[in-house]
Amino acid sequence: MPAKMLQNTTILFVFSLIFLSSSHASVQDFCVADLTGPDSPAGYSCKNPVKVTVSDFVYSGLAKAGNTTNIIQAAVTPAFVAQFPGVNGLGLSLARLDLAPGGVIPFHTHPGASEVLIVMRGVMTAGFVSSANTVYLKTLKKGDVMVFPQGLLHFQVNAAKIHAKGIVSFSSASPGLQILDFALFANDLPTSLVGQTTFLDPSQIMKLKGVLGGTG
Amino acid sequence: MPAKMLQNTTILFVFSLIFLSSSHASVQDFCVADLTGPDSPAGYSCKNPVKVTVSDFVYSGLAKAGNTTNIIQAAVTPAFVAQFPGVNGLGLSLARLDLAPGGVIPFHTHPGASEVLIVMRGVMTAGFVSSANTVYLKTLKKGDVMVFPQGLLHFQVNAAKIHAKGIVSFSSASPGLQILDFALFANDLPTSLVGQTTFLDPSQIMKLKGVLGGTG
Amino acid sequence: MPAKMLQNTTILFVFSLIFLSSSHASVQDFCVADLTGPDSPAGYSCKNPVKVTVSDFVYSGLAKAGNTTNIIQAAVTPAFVAQFPGVNGLGLSLARLDLAPGGVIPFHTHPGASEVLIVMRGVMTAGFVSSANTVYLKTLKKGDVMVFPQGLLHFQVNAAKIHAKGIVSFSSASPGLQILDFALFANDLPTSLVGQTTFLDPSQIMKLKGVLGGTG
Amino acid sequence: MPAKMLQNTTILFVFSLIFLSSSHASVQDFCVADLTGPDSPAGYSCKNPVKVTVSDFVYSGLAKAGNTTNIIQAAVTPAFVAQFPGVNGLGLSLARLDLAPGGVIPFHTHPGASEVLIVMRGVMTAGFVSSANTVYLKTLKKGDVMVFPQGLLHFQVNAAKIHAKGIVSFSSASPGLQILDFALFANDLPTSLVGQTTFLDPSQIMKLKGVLGGTG
Amino acid sequence: MPAKMLQNTTILFVFSLIFLSSSHASVQDFCVADLTGPDSPAGYSCKNPVKVTVSDFVYSGLAKAGNTTNIIQAAVTPAFVAQFPGVNGLGLSLARLDLAPGGVIPFHTHPGASEVLIVMRGVMTAGFVSSANTVYLKTLKKGDVMVFPQGLLHFQVNAAKIHAKGIVSFSSASPGLQILDFALFANDLPTSLVGQTTFLDPSQIMKLKGVLGGTG
Amino acid sequence: MPAKMLQNTTILFVFSLIFLSSSHASVQDFCVADLTGPDSPAGYSCKNPVKVTVSDFVYSGLAKAGNTTNIIQAAVTPAFVAQFPGVNGLGLSLARLDLAPGGVIPFHTHPGASEVLIVMRGVMTAGFVSSANTVYLKTLKKGDVMVFPQGLLHFQVNAAKIHAKGIVSFSSASPGLQILDFALFANDLPTSLVGQTTFLDPSQIMKLKGVLGGTG
Repeated sequence: MPAKMLQNTTILFVFSLIFLSSSHASVQDFCVADLTGPDSPAGYSCKNPVKVTVSDFVYSGLAKAGNTTNIIQAAVTPAFVAQFPGVNGLGLSLARLDLAPGGVIPFHTHPGASEVLIVMRGVMTAGFVSSANTVYLKTLKKGDVMVFPQGLLHFQVNAAKIHAKGIVSFSSASPGLQILDFALFANDLPTSLVGQTTFLDPSQIMKLKGVLGGTG
Repeated sequence: MPAKMLQNTTILFVFSLIFLSSSHASVQDFCVADLTGPDSPAGYSCKNPVKVTVSDFVYSGLAKAGNTTNIIQAAVTPAFVAQFPGVNGLGLSLARLDLAPGGVIPFHTHPGASEVLIVMRGVMTAGFVSSANTVYLKTLKKGDVMVFPQGLLHFQVNAAKIHAKGIVSFSSASPGLQILDFALFANDLPTSLVGQTTFLDPSQIMKLKGVLGGTG
Repeated sequence: MPAKMLQNTTILFVFSLIFLSSSHASVQDFCVADLTGPDSPAGYSCKNPVKVTVSDFVYSGLAKAGNTTNIIQAAVTPAFVAQFPGVNGLGLSLARLDLAPGGVIPFHTHPGASEVLIVMRGVMTAGFVSSANTVYLKTLKKGDVMVFPQGLLHFQVNAAKIHAKGIVSFSSASPGLQILDFALFANDLPTSLVGQTTFLDPSQIMKLKGVLGGTG
Repeated sequence: MPAKMLQNTTILFVFSLIFLSSSHASVQDFCVADLTGPDSPAGYSCKNPVKVTVSDFVYSGLAKAGNTTNIIQAAVTPAFVAQFPGVNGLGLSLARLDLAPGGVIPFHTHPGASEVLIVMRGVMTAGFVSSANTVYLKTLKKGDVMVFPQGLLHFQVNAAKIHAKGIVSFSSASPGLQILDFALFANDLPTSLVGQTTFLDPSQIMKLKGVLGGTG
Repeated sequence: MPAKMLQNTTILFVFSLIFLSSSHASVQDFCVADLTGPDSPAGYSCKNPVKVTVSDFVYSGLAKAGNTTNIIQAAVTPAFVAQFPGVNGLGLSLARLDLAPGGVIPFHTHPGASEVLIVMRGVMTAGFVSSANTVYLKTLKKGDVMVFPQGLLHFQVNAAKIHAKGIVSFSSASPGLQILDFALFANDLPTSLVGQTTFLDPSQIMKLKGVLGGTG
Repeated sequence: MPAKMLQNTTILFVFSLIFLSSSHASVQDFCVADLTGPDSPAGYSCKNPVKVTVSDFVYSGLAKAGNTTNIIQAAVTPAFVAQFPGVNGLGLSLARLDLAPGGVIPFHTHPGASEVLIVMRGVMTAGFVSSANTVYLKTLKKGDVMVFPQGLLHFQVNAAKIHAKGIVSFSSASPGLQILDFALFANDLPTSLVGQTTFLDPSQIMKLKGVLGGTG
């Protein structure tokens, strides 16, 4: 009864303690990553809750366009757990895509996450290929949303003459990013093995290894 | 060997069949919701993959601002599984927030999901309260990102004189949305029970029940 | 063959070693919380299994009624992982509810767990509100069981003139506990923000902040 | 602003519709089992939310003691999803244990769940054996709680001269129950195979098969 | 007491009924796929347990070598849920790899599963590439085991002059299989888009599209 | 455009850095167990990715038959996370079964995993018992596969006159292994309690305790 309540501030103090001590058990509402602590299959160790501030839950790194002065004329700016410790263990993260005119996010996968893209500016052609080898391809305008199911090869291409921008959400705090060209041509996997396992011609492989800095 | 390969299109045809039949087992890359079929704790039944098209993976309902001509001067436009069947079973969904000047997304929870907000336009003050009763409060500018851990009470308020817009991502295809005021004042929960379980004065409860259409 | 077996105790010794060494890999039957070690999104670090005793799996803290001499005339006594390290990682915990005559467990949520209540003594009126804003309300007698789905606002009220007692089970070792009144009125969230995000009158907010020790 | 709000009931009506339609997407707060519908690895199909009432979330079947006039002088009364459809998909269920003086819940496992026991009356000796073959054994008084990690062999024995009662919670809506003696002696597994795979003497096996109705 | 037990077969019959009815709730030990029923994100609907026989849990399709008379001189024979309904919902499946001399399982991913390979005959060179672009490459002899973490590009190549055979296990009943060459060259994804998103030369793309039956 | 690309190696270098830094966030493709670090409910701590080599993903311990010169004339050789750190967190592991003529893998459970067996040599009779007490029994030839759902009692017996060999896969990196005879007879659980909870005769219990080294 509210009336009675106002007359019982002393007792109320007891009440507060009771509930606060019981809610002490529930500090695990969140587990902000301590990036210097041990990592586990479920994510990073939790920062001491006493030291957590609102800054741990806020990230400003997506406010600025990524640098698109590069060969793909595009940039992916991640807000994964490594950049944004507040998402640790919450099964969620973001990234920003910037594509200059002609820009391309080349074929890639996220080994451990599904992705939803929302186009914020410009026009993008996006696609993914299923295990059944069907191509799902769409040109997306501002405000359009497209989902890319977990682990499948997909890409985004700027489909207009202006800078395009998108936000992608992932169903993991650490979705991974495996870019096909990098996996094939930017490491020391021998040309002969790349050829054997992709059926690409050696000259094609060596050309792209040259461009992307691969050896072997 | 590529050379040999070109001479073997007949054999290749066999190869294709072998792999396609084996990949037939993996049509479960995705499970587009059949909203007319049975629902389960893991999500809706899958639409027949043969009938799935790229349209199932694309949604345009977030392109337009929601109608903010209402008492909260704000709108939440969901792209949950019920609107966007392609996210079924993928642990991910989106919504768009529009807040006119003075607009507010009132205190609410998502019973089954964490949320990440990115401010696309304007300025918002956002906050959540933890089980340990700490308030995490921040004024967010365009491009800022904030995470709201699963199930905790949180809100967003327009903090400038212009229309504000945000995109929120959820770690569930069906995150739920429980608005505090609606739970307390917009149904038939008797005033006396609301009073007993919230310590609010009866006059306050009846006033808000009147506004929000609650009875009892 | 049993007969042969009895003649082979030496060989049996070898057998024991083989199986024990293979079962050595399976000490992860359980992971008793080392509350002093690093915490992770999946729970606390495991206590060294060699030091684990049956006491880690037993807890006596629910045997005694909680102190109900307080404003809500009720008490929640948790057996969460923080009190009962044996449940770490097992997705399960308990609490005891005591409600003196007139006692109330006010509106609250468990951000990360569903709850099942069994009434052990007395009569309770319990209810929860769904996202679709339906109220599910029931007066429960001794032996009755009620389930409160994950993350939804719910409450329990003593509905008789005698002390009521219940046991609640949670689908998490660390379910969290967010009491609505504490979240709104027992911290430093400014009165103006509480008003903006709840539509409560400033006088009502200030009154309850006064009672519950909130500032701002 | 509350003042303004009161003058805007028409607009408020719009607001209600907006939020209710958005929360329509979140009816999956719960998935009450439709026991007549298709079952899935994640649980039963959901009953149409429109037909769900509070009765679906309440169960009274644990109020009465089970019949202990049987060879084990004990009874297990389940509130699993098959009896209590409201727990479907929530990862939680209960059962009631009754043990007359001399009563025993024999060695058993729950293949898919951990268990927490709270003793409500009398005294029980309970134990489990780990994969590392350590026995964790304790005599529990009224109010004591003990956890049995997932899938391990365990038992409960009445340790006093009075009827004992306990409530057990499981980390699954459908925990399963495999009673060792039933698995070995109450079906048609041939005596020779039971002998080969347990090292028990044929006479012992045949004696218990006789008692428990096993054949072969 | 065993002695007493033998004198109580009538009572025992009651006991059986009690336990069998309680264990009736736990028929969900397994959920054999009804491949004709609705599919869900968690797997197929369950076959009626009454109709389940041991044949549902046994599969003989891996006994014979796959046909390696094809361009890759290799075959993958799956025992996924579509072939082997007993694994539905159990998070586990198998496949058999056969590689004739010169045979190759080309670069591919399993979108939703990790894989463990055990070499049963011959010698294989296997490798995967991480998101950090490191190549993990090993030549495996009979009996060697190698794990390929979820969603990453990997391959297997026969590294000797004899037929090689392996068994692969997956952490999913429906792991999916996305073969890189098929995704790029065996469907209707336009050559220009393949070029833009892979940096491969048009002539290379057209050559492989020709071989693999791709159009566009 | 490939042509342009070749002229831009400097810019490409920038591109590489951009993507490598973004993929730096995704080193959690895998979490090789650091067996000396803290353990958690989700598995062991991750070895520093910089120190991970292909050897962490390869295990040769299953290449050799286990020693079957023991009472069961059989051996289980595990490749669980404790032996094979590369499977940590991946929900998958293996073991090798060797059964000499007359050999038996006695009744046992894996508390946290389902199992799939593939027979590599010889003939085995395998079986499991469900919670509903049905026996699923089959004699398996070379190449046959059988699945044993999580947590259920099961066994394998050599059904021919030659050495039999099988590979078993588990849906967990740490499946556990609880052998019924060890749980009952190879520890210090008192004979009277074993009798009370299994209905076995004291003489039978003491005989097997003698053989298996149990006390009490």
